[in-house]
Formats: sequence, structure tokens, C-alpha cells
Amino acid sequence: MEYKILNTINSPNDIKCLNNNEISILCDEIRNEIISVVSQNGGHLASSLGAVELTVALHRIFSSPNDAIIFDVGHQSYAHKLLTGRRENFRTLRTENGISGFMRPDESKHDPFVTGHSSNSISAAYGIYCAKALLDSKGTAIAVIGDGAMTGGMAYEALNNAGGRKGNFIVVLNDNKMSISKNVGAMPRAFTKMRNRKGYHKMKFAISTILLKLPFFGKPLHNFVYSIKEAFKSIVYKNNIFTSLGFNYLGPVDGHDVEAMERIFTIAKSYNRPTLVHIVTTKGKGYAYAENKPKDYHGVSSFDIDKGKNISVVDTYSDVAGNTLCKLAAENKKICAITAAMTEGTGLQNFALKYKSRFYDVGIAEQHAVTFAAGLASGGMIPFFAVYSTFLQRGYDQVLHDAAIANVPIKLLVDRAGIVGDDGESHQGIFDVAYLSTIPNVNIYSPCYYNELESTIIDVSSKNEISVVRYPRGTENNNYNGKISGDYTILSNNSDKVIVTYGRIFANALDAQNSLGNVDVIKLNKIYPVSNELVNLLFNYKKIYFFEEGVLSGGVAEHIGAKLAEGNFSGKYHIQAIKNEFVGASSITSALKKYKLDRESMIEIVGK
Amino acid sequence: MEYKILNTINSPNDIKCLNNNEISILCDEIRNEIISVVSQNGGHLASSLGAVELTVALHRIFSSPNDAIIFDVGHQSYAHKLLTGRRENFRTLRTENGISGFMRPDESKHDPFVTGHSSNSISAAYGIYCAKALLDSKGTAIAVIGDGAMTGGMAYEALNNAGGRKGNFIVVLNDNKMSISKNVGAMPRAFTKMRNRKGYHKMKFAISTILLKLPFFGKPLHNFVYSIKEAFKSIVYKNNIFTSLGFNYLGPVDGHDVEAMERIFTIAKSYNRPTLVHIVTTKGKGYAYAENKPKDYHGVSSFDIDKGKNISVVDTYSDVAGNTLCKLAAENKKICAITAAMTEGTGLQNFALKYKSRFYDVGIAEQHAVTFAAGLASGGMIPFFAVYSTFLQRGYDQVLHDAAIANVPIKLLVDRAGIVGDDGESHQGIFDVAYLSTIPNVNIYSPCYYNELESTIIDVSSKNEISVVRYPRGTENNNYNGKISGDYTILSNNSDKVIVTYGRIFANALDAQNSLGNVDVIKLNKIYPVSNELVNLLFNYKKIYFFEEGVLSGGVAEHIGAKLAEGNFSGKYHIQAIKNEFVGASSITSALKKYKLDRESMIEIVGK
Repeated sequence: MEYKILNTINSPNDIKCLNNNEISILCDEIRNEIISVVSQNGGHLASSLGAVELTVALHRIFSSPNDAIIFDVGHQSYAHKLLTGRRENFRTLRTENGISGFMRPDESKHDPFVTGHSSNSISAAYGIYCAKALLDSKGTAIAVIGDGAMTGGMAYEALNNAGGRKGNFIVVLNDNKMSISKNVGAMPRAFTKMRNRKGYHKMKFAISTILLKLPFFGKPLHNFVYSIKEAFKSIVYKNNIFTSLGFNYLGPVDGHDVEAMERIFTIAKSYNRPTLVHIVTTKGKGYAYAENKPKDYHGVSSFDIDKGKNISVVDTYSDVAGNTLCKLAAENKKICAITAAMTEGTGLQNFALKYKSRFYDVGIAEQHAVTFAAGLASGGMIPFFAVYSTFLQRGYDQVLHDAAIANVPIKLLVDRAGIVGDDGESHQGIFDVAYLSTIPNVNIYSPCYYNELESTIIDVSSKNEISVVRYPRGTENNNYNGKISGDYTILSNNSDKVIVTYGRIFANALDAQNSLGNVDVIKLNKIYPVSNELVNLLFNYKKIYFFEEGVLSGGVAEHIGAKLAEGNFSGKYHIQAIKNEFVGASSITSALKKYKLDRESMIEIVGK
Repeated sequence: MEYKILNTINSPNDIKCLNNNEISILCDEIRNEIISVVSQNGGHLASSLGAVELTVALHRIFSSPNDAIIFDVGHQSYAHKLLTGRRENFRTLRTENGISGFMRPDESKHDPFVTGHSSNSISAAYGIYCAKALLDSKGTAIAVIGDGAMTGGMAYEALNNAGGRKGNFIVVLNDNKMSISKNVGAMPRAFTKMRNRKGYHKMKFAISTILLKLPFFGKPLHNFVYSIKEAFKSIVYKNNIFTSLGFNYLGPVDGHDVEAMERIFTIAKSYNRPTLVHIVTTKGKGYAYAENKPKDYHGVSSFDIDKGKNISVVDTYSDVAGNTLCKLAAENKKICAITAAMTEGTGLQNFALKYKSRFYDVGIAEQHAVTFAAGLASGGMIPFFAVYSTFLQRGYDQVLHDAAIANVPIKLLVDRAGIVGDDGESHQGIFDVAYLSTIPNVNIYSPCYYNELESTIIDVSSKNEISVVRYPRGTENNNYNGKISGDYTILSNNSDKVIVTYGRIFANALDAQNSLGNVDVIKLNKIYPVSNELVNLLFNYKKIYFFEEGVLSGGVAEHIGAKLAEGNFSGKYHIQAIKNEFVGASSITSALKKYKLDRESMIEIVGK
């Protein structure tokens, strides 16, 4: 598109010399470009729109890549991408081999660290900062972290480690007054308090304007006065969680006022101690639909800019899971639901409304969520923690130590299990089967269809065991009318060849069987532990083809393969799974094809 | 032993009616019993001695098990065990089938939750609390957590979740002014500030004594006055990290004054909001050696009570790892060392002294530690994070997301890998190979001997890869003079049978080979990824026996077994590993025997 200013920006240096008017035009143009591209490719809209001025101000005062700037989670890094040499490719956002929706060091020297999972930015930035200090390298490191991400324990661990030390390490709190879901917990309330303090709204006091108009000494004098004011404020309001943790606290500042932020960042740069700058932004800023309903415009699919997002009426696996929990909760007062800041994402919005007292949004805190569930279960409740496969990685130790050792019967609903598509490497749900199956006492189920998902959730709700029910992102491919029950289901053609698989790609196996004819299919319903009965059954075949939508190493195909080797199986065993690599952004269909888990690949491999 | 009061205590109810003098005798007797048993069985001494009065006061004011009391980590739960019906068995502490050194729900109804890993108590207790509220059950839930454990992010996530809500949920901060190693980070400094506030040392003000002597109204009046004083203090000192997180704050109180604690717990019980009570204790209290050097008496082996602990002069794997890092650091300024509050445990005490600017004790914060290491590596340093296998479980997602996606070359020294002995289920290092080998870009080495450990650490320090070097607890069994290099080492007898193994138990395999004669041994040095060369080599054998000191599910034996099945291996494949279960407390020798990983079992299995 024809952008007057944006099209002249090839590196962050190019924005340092712009005047106020040009900056204002630039911000508008960045917003337009983000809205335009996200309306086509989908992506994280509301947070990115909120951080436009913040990003511009950061790049005017700091010098990336010497100053390493890390945008936590990366939802709000789109403006950063546009300003750091990726403008021309930005239209490939979130497509195969295109620009990632998150920070990726292999994409640009301006992305110093991988982002995608929440709350890691302060740890990473502090590490980079310490390396700079030890190596006498130029520049500092800045973590830009949202109020939502600040509810994650990692952020606190990092603040505790960095706080009170020497050096000019900087954390910018981008407080948009809501995280992905509505913000929860005590910390956000504390932020509200800090925001509401007197003085914030009078920030741009008259004297500013006068001083800045003076020739020569105007700007330094202004900065001096401003700096005293900030120092004074920090004494008066000095007791907050950040100062407790040894951080210098500056702010709050209006996150849509570039000049105000430039002033405060200039001051932040001058300290020889870790400093937290509190910026207040509006999620969705500049696009009315998103500003009014920021939650709905957090992560979006393509939409019509003028009309806004269609309200999706298509059911997804998440909806089925959420509705099933509602049904169960109506009948059984012990059913609870827990989310880690993903109420809508995991389909729990109805549960949250209907069963408020048994619904817990614990913040972006998967560790706590698992152990809290184990506490609820120890106290006699039946807690379901609904969580994305990739984020449950944060709770590995808690499942093992806090639930499995004492066999506390928590229930995990593992959403987005398998390939997730355009979010790329950091969001793929391809590890859960491997890591959860290392843990004793864990039982894993992997339904393929909505009705199977529903019946599985109902079944496990009354089982006195740790149950994991995992299901993919999106919608079902309903191509089966048969009955699914027990630990596995056989679709026999009396063949000596068999396809073994589980989860969503069973639908592909079914199609392949219909094409090929001469092959059996075994669908695993309960995928772990592997039963001896199943293994014995497999010994009847001459050729076994295992298709697994997950990593090879530690997956079910390996568990079974080892058992076959131990049992002296003399036939052919073929594993088709995701080898030792991360899966980049692409459509789900395209990724399944790439890893040969689609119908055609199955036909090709088995038909040979 | 003949204990006048302790021997009459069969349940916590029995201590509620004791008078002050009897309480004082009871505390002495508990201390004597703990010192006596730990001096024989080993265990966590200093923290347990510090928490005697605190435990007594808790059990006098609250009613376990209706009030669920969870001692975080469990190091300080010995007095609790003595008071809750386990007095007679207490001499079996930390032995096979004996009393666990941590809380275990299967041991007593007074242990409401598993402890062992730090910082989970608030999450668990809050879950139990919410279950009680939902089910209208009696009682409350109390998390007792040390200042060290408070540096873990999980504790913060739980405080954030519970803070500001309704109900009488209670957290007791047992502030012993040092965690396992010397306390680090900003949080402990904040505690020091809170402790040093005026008024703390005047806690037991004269009026107390007078009021309490009044007949009838003395005690209620006293409590009323005390309550006003506490309320006033909490207004004056109201701005601390706990109040920021929505907790009512009471304290600090002398943790060796039972009466003072009883008063404050009585007040804490009366609130309808989450309350944190700050108790100040002395680690090692009552045993001079431990009080003077609490760090040395944190976890101990058996010792002579009169003479104190022998200073250990025996080198361990940890010492070798620490000393090797020192050597490397002398030559290369990029070498850094990181610990999560385990400086001594991981043998880093010399590094910490000699290379202070490159040494980071980040607190009990494994998540942050991994990502901080990745930050350091991104900035050009070569960071080694030394961590116990079991505690690295907390950093699973960080290894995967923050290091492996961008292949940031961090170095993990995984100490206590394999069976650890008397600490039991929560501390066994039997999962690391399984969970780390699910992650792309990770390389795992498992040396058997000190010289191999040293050379492996030196080797990986110059490799541009994510390296994991894992080694067991304790000392080597040096029975091999041969050369060890490359990815694997073959000790050939030109046999068609082969033992495959790695790590410490290679020494057993070597002994077995010497006994049996007719068997080859392949020692894996780099255990993951499995090389094709190795698999091809294995196809030359008719019988393969894989011995693995770790869980079966997802271990190396399974990875190789699946490859054998895929390659149509027609010989015998036997896996001897730890099946799908947790390993309880016992000596390492006894556990290796139980899981048939000792020399004799190898001879028996292979010789058949």
C-alpha cells in the first residue's frame, strides 16, 4: 500500500529523525497495515494495535539491535516487525515460510529471543543484559511485558533475581488492563490502584509545554524537571510490588502519547539500577470493533474490516468440551473447571457464567493451575483443567510431582493437541503424548470425533484416576458412523496389514482404508498406557503402519515398537510421525501432508 | 526413649490441653528426638529444628486433619510427624518402607498433600480450601512455607490467585532468614526489611503479661488488645508484597515463642480474607552446631551428636562437575554457572567464590534459571545450569520453548540423575532422559566415571549445541581403566550377546561381563539422539540386553527398541528398566537390586 512515512522506514534508525506530525502519521499507517494484513491472514490484532505508539517510542529512544528489545509472548510485536526491515514481507504474516506471528531470532537480528509462551521475556532479557555487562558490549536489554503475562510465576522469578542489582536493566509493563481473558487475580487489582493514583491524568502538566518552547535549555530543563517529578512520585508511591522486588518504578504513563513515553524512557535509561516503566495502553486502540470488544479481537481469523468479525457459529472441539463440562456440572456439584487465562479459547465461557462458584481462572499460571486442581481433588472435588497442549508443558513437574505421586485424580482437558497451524513452532501441540506418557499413573485418551470427545469426558469424570483427554484445534471431519468404545476400535477387513493411529487423523486412516480396501485399521481410544491385549493383537499382523500426529521420540508408536521388539515381532513395523524437529507455521492441512499424516500419504505408504 | 510429655502425645488433640511448662518440655523432647533420629538416619535437620515451636503452636490452634496443614517442601515436617501419631515409627525415618522424609498422604491423614518439590504448598492448600468451601466441609487449609520456597514462581502464582478473595485461607511464612543456600534475590531483602521494623522486638510488651494474669477477662481482653495492635501494625506497615497481592498481613512474630504464635494464629483464624502470618525462626534452633552453621546441617548423613558432623572429604560427582567448571572458567571468560539455590549441593561453592561475577544463584526458580541461561547464551556467554534431575522437571517447557526452538546452546549439568536413595519418590532422578529426549535439538551425555564426567563437560563447553550432561548422586565405583570416547564404547568378547547400558550402572555391566565372559558390552556415552551407526551395530547381535537406570516409558531402551522393530530385528531384545511406577525411599544399592540393575541381576538375566 501507499504509506507516506511507513514506506520510508527500512530500519529503526529511520524513525529517530521524524517530527511529531510524521510520528503521528506513522502510527496511523502502522495501524492500517496491521489491520489490513491481520484481516486477511488472521493473527493477534488487539494487543498489536495497543502497542503501536509504545513500539515507536521504544525504537526512538533505544537502538535495536544493540539494545535488545523482547516483546513478551510476541502478540504485540507486529509494529516492531514493520519497523525493523520486515515491512515488505509483512503480508506473509503467519503463512508457510512467511513472517512469524511471534519473535524469531532466525527471522531478524531485531528479534533477540523466541517468544510465544508467556512470561519468559524478563528472564531472557536479563540474561542478555548480564552477557552484555560481562562482555562489555554496547546497549541494554528491555523486556516489554503485558499485565496478563505478569501473572506468570516466571516473570516474578526473574524480577526477584534482577531486582536490587546494579545496571540499567529495563522492564516495560504494558498494562492494557486485560490479558487474553479478563484479567484475574490480585496483581491486576494492584495495577488498577497504581493507575488510579492522583497525578497520572495530570501527567502532561502545563509547565512541560512552556519549558519545551524555551530555546537551547528548554529540553534539558524540561527533562530535569520531569525527572525530579518522577523521582518524587516514586518516593511517594514507592511501595508497590516492583519496588518490593528491588526495582525502580516509573509511571504510569499514557501509552498512546509518544512524547510522554520518550521522556520516561530517557529517564529510565539514566539509572544505574533495574527500572520498571509502567505504561497504560488500550487494547485494540484505533480500530473501533477491537477497542469495544478487545477480547473478541485478541486472536482472530480473517475478517471484513468494515463489518468487523463474524461471530463464529461453527462448533469446535473446544465448544464440545466446554458444553460437556456444563452438562456434567448440572448433574454433579463436584465438577469444577479451571483455566489459565483461556476461558474462551478452551470453550469455558458458558461454564464460567453458569457455574461461577466452581469456575477458576487462575491467570497465566499453568503450574499453579495443575497443583490447585490436585488440591481441589484432594479435597473431594472433580476438577477439569482445560489447557492448550503447548502451555501444559509448563505444568510437567506439577502433573508428575503434585498429582501422580499420590495418584490424585485430576482431569486434564488438553486442547490444541496436535498440529495447530499458523501459530508455528511455539504453539504446536505435538509433545504432550510424549511428555505425559513418561509419568506413572497417567491415563491418556485421544478422541477423534465430537461425540467421542463428549463420551470420553463423561467417562473419565467418574474414574478415580488421573485422566488426560486430548483433542485438536478446530472442527471435526465427521466421516464415521460406527461405534467407538473400549481402549481401541478395530475396523477389520481380515487383512494381514494394519494401520494403527489415534486422534483426528483416524478420519484420514478411515478414508485410506476405504480407498485401499485390503487393510485393517486399529483406532486407539485410550492411547496410554499401552495394553498387553493390544500388543498381542498386533502380533497377528504381518505389516503394521503406525501414524502418529506428534513427535516420534517418546510417542505411542515408540512405546509399541519397543514392545514389539521385546516380543520378537518378525513382521514389518513402520512409524510415520514427526521426527526430531519443530513444526513451523502453515495450514494444518499442509503440515499433515508434509509429515505424511494425510489420507493420500497413508494410501501411498500402506499401498506400496 | 523416655520422653515425659512426647510419649503421651498420640494425636494433635493431646497437646491442646498442655500448660506452658509442659509445652516447653515437649518442644525440648521433640528436638531431642529429631536430633537423635537424624543423627542416625540422616535427614533434613536444621529446618526441622527451626520449626518445632511453630508446629506445636499450629497444632494447638488448628485441628488437623480437619484443618489441612501443608508444610512446603516437607523439610520441616518432622515435628509434625512426631505429633500426629507417627512417634513410634519415627525411628524408621527415610528407610525402606519407613516414615518418609516428606509429607505423604498414604502415610497419614495428617499429610494432606505430597511435598518434596518446593513452592507447591500454597497452590495445594488453596485448592483444598476451595474444596472445603464448596462442600461446606469443616476447617480451613494452611500452607506453611519458608522464605526460600517463596522465591519460586509457583508460590507467587498461587498468592495472586488466592489474594483478595473471601474466606479464611491462611499462609504462614516461616522466615528462617536463609533458604537451602544463602538466600538470594530481592524478596529476601524485602523480608529483612519487614523483620527489622520497629515493634518486632517489643512484641511481647509488658501489658500482655499483666492482662493475662487477670481472672476471667484477662485472656479475651489480652487478645482484644493484641488484635488492635496487629490491626494497627498492619495499617502502618501495610505496603508489602503480600498486601499488594491482596493478603492480609500479620507479623512478624517470634517463631520460638509458642504463646505469641498462638495469639497471632487465633487472630488469623478470625478474618474472612486470606491472611499471611510472618513468623521468624532460627534454622537449626536448639542444636549449637546446626545453629552456627545451618547451611551445613540442612541435609545431613548420620553424625555424632556430641562432636557434630564430619566435614566430608570424599569427592562426589558434584564436586568433579564444580571443579571442572572452575578449570574451564579460568581459561575462558565466557563460562558462567547458574544454580537454583543449590550452590553446595551441585558442587559450585568454589566457582561461586572464585568467579563471583559469572556465578548466578537465582533462587528456587528453575524456570527462570533455564531461560536466563538461554538469555546469557543468546548474548554470547557459555552458561552451565547445574540442577538436580528431579528439579529440572520444573524447567521442561523452558528447555523446549526458550532454548530448543532457536537452538540456543545452553549447557545443563543434571546432578542426582538416576536413583537417589532415601529421599524417595519426590526426588528420584529417573525421568530426565525420558522427558528431555522428547525435545528436538537436545543432546544428552551420561558419563559413568569422574574422568569421563570431566572430559564430557570440557567437550560440550565448546560445542555449539544444547548439551545435557547427567550424572548420579554420590561417588564413583572406579573399576575401568580403558579409554572412553566417541558416542559409545564397545568392550567386545566377540559374542553374539550384548549388554547395552549407560551411566553409573555401566560399572555393574563391566563386573557382570568379567563374571560371565561370553558377552559384549556397549556403553553409551552420548545417549541421545540415538545414532544410526549404533543401531546398525546392534543388528549384528542375536541377543541384546538393555539395562537402563530410569523409567522405561520414553527412555533410550524404548527409542532403540522401536528402531529395532522398524529395522526388522529378529533376535531377542530385553529391556530392564524402571517400569511405570515411582521409586520409594531405600538405599541406592537396594533400589538397584530391586529393579535388577545391579551386577548380580545382570549376571542372572544375561546368563540365562
